[in-house]
Amino acid sequence: MIFTSDNWAGAHPAIAASLSAHSTGFAAAYGASDLDRKVEQSFNEIFGQEVSVFFVGTGTAANSLALSAINRPGGVSFCHREAHVIADECGAPEFFSHGSRLVPVDGAEGKMEPAVLEAEIARFPEGFVHAGQPMAITLTQATESGTVYSPDEIRAISKIAKAHGLPLHMDGARFANALVALDLTPSQMTVDLGVDIVSFGGTKNGCWCAEALVFLDPAMATQAPFIRKRAAQLFSKSRFIAAQFDAYFENGLWLDVARHSNAMAARLQSGITSSSHARLAWASPANETFPIVPTSLSKDLTAKGAMFYEWSPPRSAAHLVGADETMLRLVTSFATTEDHVDQFIEMLG
Amino acid sequence: MIFTSDNWAGAHPAIAASLSAHSTGFAAAYGASDLDRKVEQSFNEIFGQEVSVFFVGTGTAANSLALSAINRPGGVSFCHREAHVIADECGAPEFFSHGSRLVPVDGAEGKMEPAVLEAEIARFPEGFVHAGQPMAITLTQATESGTVYSPDEIRAISKIAKAHGLPLHMDGARFANALVALDLTPSQMTVDLGVDIVSFGGTKNGCWCAEALVFLDPAMATQAPFIRKRAAQLFSKSRFIAAQFDAYFENGLWLDVARHSNAMAARLQSGITSSSHARLAWASPANETFPIVPTSLSKDLTAKGAMFYEWSPPRSAAHLVGADETMLRLVTSFATTEDHVDQFIEMLG
Amino acid sequence: MIFTSDNWAGAHPAIAASLSAHSTGFAAAYGASDLDRKVEQSFNEIFGQEVSVFFVGTGTAANSLALSAINRPGGVSFCHREAHVIADECGAPEFFSHGSRLVPVDGAEGKMEPAVLEAEIARFPEGFVHAGQPMAITLTQATESGTVYSPDEIRAISKIAKAHGLPLHMDGARFANALVALDLTPSQMTVDLGVDIVSFGGTKNGCWCAEALVFLDPAMATQAPFIRKRAAQLFSKSRFIAAQFDAYFENGLWLDVARHSNAMAARLQSGITSSSHARLAWASPANETFPIVPTSLSKDLTAKGAMFYEWSPPRSAAHLVGADETMLRLVTSFATTEDHVDQFIEMLG
Amino acid sequence: MIFTSDNWAGAHPAIAASLSAHSTGFAAAYGASDLDRKVEQSFNEIFGQEVSVFFVGTGTAANSLALSAINRPGGVSFCHREAHVIADECGAPEFFSHGSRLVPVDGAEGKMEPAVLEAEIARFPEGFVHAGQPMAITLTQATESGTVYSPDEIRAISKIAKAHGLPLHMDGARFANALVALDLTPSQMTVDLGVDIVSFGGTKNGCWCAEALVFLDPAMATQAPFIRKRAAQLFSKSRFIAAQFDAYFENGLWLDVARHSNAMAARLQSGITSSSHARLAWASPANETFPIVPTSLSKDLTAKGAMFYEWSPPRSAAHLVGADETMLRLVTSFATTEDHVDQFIEMLG
Repeated sequence: MIFTSDNWAGAHPAIAASLSAHSTGFAAAYGASDLDRKVEQSFNEIFGQEVSVFFVGTGTAANSLALSAINRPGGVSFCHREAHVIADECGAPEFFSHGSRLVPVDGAEGKMEPAVLEAEIARFPEGFVHAGQPMAITLTQATESGTVYSPDEIRAISKIAKAHGLPLHMDGARFANALVALDLTPSQMTVDLGVDIVSFGGTKNGCWCAEALVFLDPAMATQAPFIRKRAAQLFSKSRFIAAQFDAYFENGLWLDVARHSNAMAARLQSGITSSSHARLAWASPANETFPIVPTSLSKDLTAKGAMFYEWSPPRSAAHLVGADETMLRLVTSFATTEDHVDQFIEMLG
Repeated sequence: MIFTSDNWAGAHPAIAASLSAHSTGFAAAYGASDLDRKVEQSFNEIFGQEVSVFFVGTGTAANSLALSAINRPGGVSFCHREAHVIADECGAPEFFSHGSRLVPVDGAEGKMEPAVLEAEIARFPEGFVHAGQPMAITLTQATESGTVYSPDEIRAISKIAKAHGLPLHMDGARFANALVALDLTPSQMTVDLGVDIVSFGGTKNGCWCAEALVFLDPAMATQAPFIRKRAAQLFSKSRFIAAQFDAYFENGLWLDVARHSNAMAARLQSGITSSSHARLAWASPANETFPIVPTSLSKDLTAKGAMFYEWSPPRSAAHLVGADETMLRLVTSFATTEDHVDQFIEMLG
Repeated sequence: MIFTSDNWAGAHPAIAASLSAHSTGFAAAYGASDLDRKVEQSFNEIFGQEVSVFFVGTGTAANSLALSAINRPGGVSFCHREAHVIADECGAPEFFSHGSRLVPVDGAEGKMEPAVLEAEIARFPEGFVHAGQPMAITLTQATESGTVYSPDEIRAISKIAKAHGLPLHMDGARFANALVALDLTPSQMTVDLGVDIVSFGGTKNGCWCAEALVFLDPAMATQAPFIRKRAAQLFSKSRFIAAQFDAYFENGLWLDVARHSNAMAARLQSGITSSSHARLAWASPANETFPIVPTSLSKDLTAKGAMFYEWSPPRSAAHLVGADETMLRLVTSFATTEDHVDQFIEMLG
Repeated sequence: MIFTSDNWAGAHPAIAASLSAHSTGFAAAYGASDLDRKVEQSFNEIFGQEVSVFFVGTGTAANSLALSAINRPGGVSFCHREAHVIADECGAPEFFSHGSRLVPVDGAEGKMEPAVLEAEIARFPEGFVHAGQPMAITLTQATESGTVYSPDEIRAISKIAKAHGLPLHMDGARFANALVALDLTPSQMTVDLGVDIVSFGGTKNGCWCAEALVFLDPAMATQAPFIRKRAAQLFSKSRFIAAQFDAYFENGLWLDVARHSNAMAARLQSGITSSSHARLAWASPANETFPIVPTSLSKDLTAKGAMFYEWSPPRSAAHLVGADETMLRLVTSFATTEDHVDQFIEMLG
């Protein structure tokens, strides 16, 4: 029972098969192959409009190059305090955007609170060079807390972005999980709500290594080919990413995988809710689940072979965890089975 | 007949198979899996000593992070004028090393001339802050001209590096091709000759995407984990690189593939030498071949379906190409067959 | 009555005279003149040991180059939430240190609380690449709140720095004001307490433009000459800075000026304490004073010709300011006279 | 007799006096004083149109921030092989422009040869990400060889810049010397010839420390306030620069000083031409003179107290210097007198 992370899984069989199938023959390098073009076209279809797509190797790359592309000197980007960009990327976003700053914004359950966001932006008055200048807002969908921003919640943030002339970036490392949780189309979850740039993740949802930086407005992408190459993210055998995405989109595989992962999380949450030894810190419709358990039980679970991370509760949730309690993080993926979940729930007692 | 580049090939069947075989099950992410460990051990064995290995996604990443790891403020690195780092990486080495500079060094057939190298270094006297300070020497093995530095040639450069206290980096995007051309062990071609850091390439030699930054002295690598992560080059499902390298090293596959590619190049060169319509610009023992042909013949070859790049002759070879002549670059790989070569030679007439 | 900032004053007459006196004749450029050497020797004397001194043009430069000199990839430096480095330098410290991050540490009256500092550092466990790595602690002395860290308070922070292997930087834009407030020698306020690097400010204390980056351990400064030059902070006519410092140190002028400025602040604070229309937010022994007044009175004072900034209260002091009240910042300098102070106090009523 | 450099002189008496005169009283910091505004207006008048002016501390800063303001990812700027930006700034231009590259362009007597410039630009075909992309052309006026580009020569380079969509930057560390040598107005030497940005130097021409980054089209300067502040080049007591420029422009002092320096150089050149022991490497109408003398004579001159630099001849002039000969560089300034010159010429014999 491995719930450590969705990136502990390998590759979905259909994606592995696609990679094998495309391993023969010659194809133009550096993203110029027919397969690259086909997949770029898939992105256009998915977003319902022409978009600019750049394959990269990691989610950190997608996020960092997004900020690099909209960089301003002395720039400040706003993100949730627990966001991956600020908590888990070793300063890559700052490095790639020439030293711009990330400012943490508080909010419950992994989501920026619009009023707090406004207050943080207000600390950087227009033209006041000492403080620096606002440069972007970036939100994570689904969040690091397994929650998802509703369309209204995204709209509220987008409105703030537009009011301040700031591009809105969505870190979609778990884009598909959010999408199926909300039952929206990609366009409905982004274009229609004022999102400008998406880090579109495939890796956590069944690919080996397939991430895309998507500019919903191609006009924002004029410098992106150079930004990507300069960042050492232009792959020579680019079709190895394209082949993964090709299978990913085929017959909606990506949505099926996300639905499965979310369903496994829902099954976990249902079991936890029924258990007398654990409770949920909060409900989370995507593929991450955060139970609170007695610390001794956490050790027992580990001893019995369950794998997961004990999780530092977010600042806003610290009060939920009692003195002898521990918060866990359980992540599900395409490789999680009902059996894994049921065994874990049984262990929980 | 595709001779455009070795990165137009896909993945060697054994490598594709390994990737499929490792696609199931769970494994620790971010390079902590047993397979990652096993492959790191393979690197130790190959180099005959403990080394520090960091998987990355592109050769540009390996080169750039090597320079980042040995970065000095106002630093200047010396490379051949036609080296990949200076000619083909969109400034990535400079970007990742905080604006350090690459200084081109002249020399015939893709190899730095030691006397010229000395003269260039001398332009940066010790402690003279206005000019900046020497920081590294980087050589490409095999070179962009398909040639290889002999042990004596590497030793001559290494001696200069040591005299000036400079680390010596080897861009080994085609490391295996050089190795088998020289019939040396990895240790003989690097450690024994004073090389400090190697960009160890697998992609051009039959992998999809498998590059490694190898510090021959682990003491030089203390900051490298952070440098790699900050560069967005730490892959979550790192075993997808490990699985490629695992097959790559199995039973010396990597050397067999390189021998094949070089042999195909030798076959091409033999055919060209025999042709009355073409001649070699220079002999090149690795997997790149540079014929000079009448410009009209180049067009004919293309029209008949041969694919290759017309190549701007290096500055030092410009005089070799006549007014109505064109230099071609022909690259061979695991996917090149004797048939491909023979067809091309036949077309040549 | 101008209390906006100590940088609204010009140059102290003795410093202006020194600059005039040194304006004739020839002298070696780029810091190599006899006068530069003499002033460097003064720094050695002041700190009671051999130090490495680099003149720069702004306090932001001194702070930024200090962090650049101790840079680590993915590095994180800890400072007070209101510190100049994080609040007023437009991201220069991050830019010059290749995208390293500043993490705000809370604490009352402008001083980092050691327990909070420890907790923030603990968020970056050793070797955990995702979070980044601690790289420095930087404290401001005197603080942006006009307060000064006591020797014990510095020692507590220094102890944490040493425990984590972190260099300790002191932003001494108002070094002299702190020094005379504590009645310590420079060595007692730095070397003896474990400070490693000092941004030594002269500008706010009567110079035109004279700042120095001082490495108390010269071994930390080996790359600093290149770091300064690369930062465009090596002045050709460097003696124009040396001439200012020469007068600054002559007969303890710098301490006299600081004593005067602090005395003017004390006189202000005494008047405010006596006033029935104003109160001090906190006591501040250096040259900045923070009264809280009715908002209407603030407007009146401005209308009557007093100049100062209305000040956003620090997060930790927000509760001190009532609904119809405003916090002011009053800064005194060599140019502030008793008359200025008394007029202001009279206006206050 | 000191001919080492124009930055070995101090400050012109009128400039020193202005600084003293403005040292009293209070003035708004960070460039917001009336004096700052007045001097900005002087720049508008000098260039005959509204320009955007940013005071900075060094010529290296002006050059580097110019390139930072027009930065492109993977960018490549073209300059003469001996230009200050590439030869004497320790990589500052690359650092401030996020790792962009400087490409040396050959040409006699310090001036880029248009045909060579075109050939170098052609190495970076549009949209070819591997090579990087052209980003700027920068020329030095007067050049490091004491020569000046004629209007036609600037026009030829400007035409190339416009054809490739590249901004044209002029490093005017010795702007005044070139201007009076050509007998042009600032506008005639820049705006009318298609120059976009000027590093306007005062330091070498009699100021202590007064440089300005001038955007001839204010629309190019929208990010410059943040670029300057982030670069630690916004001076708090900015009026100390303004006070220098104020005197500099008063009654054409700057032109008079430049005329004097150039006249002293002409007197030197006349003396050298008449000497049977020395000859000019080339004629140079600005304030730098390059004689070739027997090496033994160079030693003699030094022994007798003359100070100057022995100069490595530029690549294009190496053939001018015989085996036992040495090239010297002699720089004149406001502080050079006819006596200094005549003594030197007498020593020359």
